[in-house]
Amino acid sequence: MPRIVVEVMPKPEILDPQGTAITHAMGRLGFEGLGEVRQGKRFEVEVATADEATLAAVREAAETLLSNPVIEDVVSVRVQEDDPR
Amino acid sequence: MPRIVVEVMPKPEILDPQGTAITHAMGRLGFEGLGEVRQGKRFEVEVATADEATLAAVREAAETLLSNPVIEDVVSVRVQEDDPR
Repeated sequence: MPRIVVEVMPKPEILDPQGTAITHAMGRLGFEGLGEVRQGKRFEVEVATADEATLAAVREAAETLLSNPVIEDVVSVRVQEDDPR
Repeated sequence: MPRIVVEVMPKPEILDPQGTAITHAMGRLGFEGLGEVRQGKRFEVEVATADEATLAAVREAAETLLSNPVIEDVVSVRVQEDDPR
């Protein structure tokens, strides 16, 4: 079955404490040269057919159910090309 | 500054209660024709230069710090092509 991938990130102006914790942990663990980390969400939605109507439905779900538009941006809604697993 | 995107998903055989909750919510909210939803994580790591050594460091961080290899797969580590925001 095709899958549609939805990616959601905290808006740039919103504090991201999880990302900040990871940023500091990376420094302590010796990962040099890596800067700020921000953490968002990734969803995979199974669909029967990845047609335009289905993509539109997933886009609407992404904006209303999968993200909080006050603090998050939907950065990508796309058909998954291949499953690396 | 370039960013490297890391995507992490629960392994297919691992239960994903958040994804299941979203799947049910979609049905209740009238999103028809959408199947199972699974929820994972997406990280953006700022780097000074997106060279091969930095990518290797981010890949190592992805496997050790950003994911739990017992229950999660790192599905993608890639340089972010463009920032849609």
